[in-house]
Amino acid sequence: MLLIFTGNGKGKTTAALGQAMRALGQNKRVLMIQFIKGGQISGEHKFLKKFKSASWRTKFKIIPAGRGFVKILGDKLPLLVHKKAAQNALKLAQKAINPPAGGKKWDLIILDEINIAVNLKLIKAGDVLKILKLAPKDIDIILTGRGAPKSFIQKADLATEMKEIKHPFKKGQTAKKGIDF
Amino acid sequence: MLLIFTGNGKGKTTAALGQAMRALGQNKRVLMIQFIKGGQISGEHKFLKKFKSASWRTKFKIIPAGRGFVKILGDKLPLLVHKKAAQNALKLAQKAINPPAGGKKWDLIILDEINIAVNLKLIKAGDVLKILKLAPKDIDIILTGRGAPKSFIQKADLATEMKEIKHPFKKGQTAKKGIDF
Repeated sequence: MLLIFTGNGKGKTTAALGQAMRALGQNKRVLMIQFIKGGQISGEHKFLKKFKSASWRTKFKIIPAGRGFVKILGDKLPLLVHKKAAQNALKLAQKAINPPAGGKKWDLIILDEINIAVNLKLIKAGDVLKILKLAPKDIDIILTGRGAPKSFIQKADLATEMKEIKHPFKKGQTAKKGIDF
Repeated sequence: MLLIFTGNGKGKTTAALGQAMRALGQNKRVLMIQFIKGGQISGEHKFLKKFKSASWRTKFKIIPAGRGFVKILGDKLPLLVHKKAAQNALKLAQKAINPPAGGKKWDLIILDEINIAVNLKLIKAGDVLKILKLAPKDIDIILTGRGAPKSFIQKADLATEMKEIKHPFKKGQTAKKGIDF
């Protein structure tokens, strides 16, 4: 099943994390590959670190494969660096979706902010679609990020637009610990 | 901070659960009171059960205070039973938001499907607003459910409409384990 959380409002990545929690509860193995997030440590990463020793730790993995915000909020990295990171993230996604013999299998794979990576031309929509085609029927994939390409929506089983009604950033408030990260 | 996740699309409760995960990662204490969900066990409840013994178990609690779907999907309970359950949930919310001396304090309180409880006239919007006024400034509250009353949106710092673009239930598919519950 392919799910998409898109739109300009808050709740896309968090909805995916909520799906992860629900899936973990149902004994599923969950992998999140983050296409934009890199070094910055968010609540979800700290959550995972807290339970490093627990046996279910192997059931939930987050790979922050990006290099952070692209061309906004003080980003000074060359675009090529972001491109390489996103393309590497896509390779990781391919490996996860279509694992080599003996490779780890996941039940839910979240490709976080992949829509943004496409919009920023870090990766191509066509390459993502090729990889999605490799997915076995019994796994679930979630794509997040604003501006999901139409071709992704067409392929999806479920798509939600998270539409901003009100956002405190507009009033000049900055990101809040435990809420935004 | 008051956040609202509303709209007819998938992702409202899961976004709240994702916020819970992020908040837990940031050492916050999270309570979810479910106004509609009752006996049925979802992935989020199983997730909690798995970690009963962990020390952080006291940091995350879900109370399924409802009596299940109201007047749909085979519900045959008298409306009064649903009403009592929702009103009891509201009392629990008041206690959590404005704890008595020595009472447990929470950093994030999720009132799940409370918007629906208001729409179904199980509880009054005015009563909810009264309780929200009691909230200390340093706690975060999330209200979920479709059809959030305008008075809630007005009071909110952040509101997102989860708008359905595509949903498999429309194609006759039923709820899927690990995704919908």
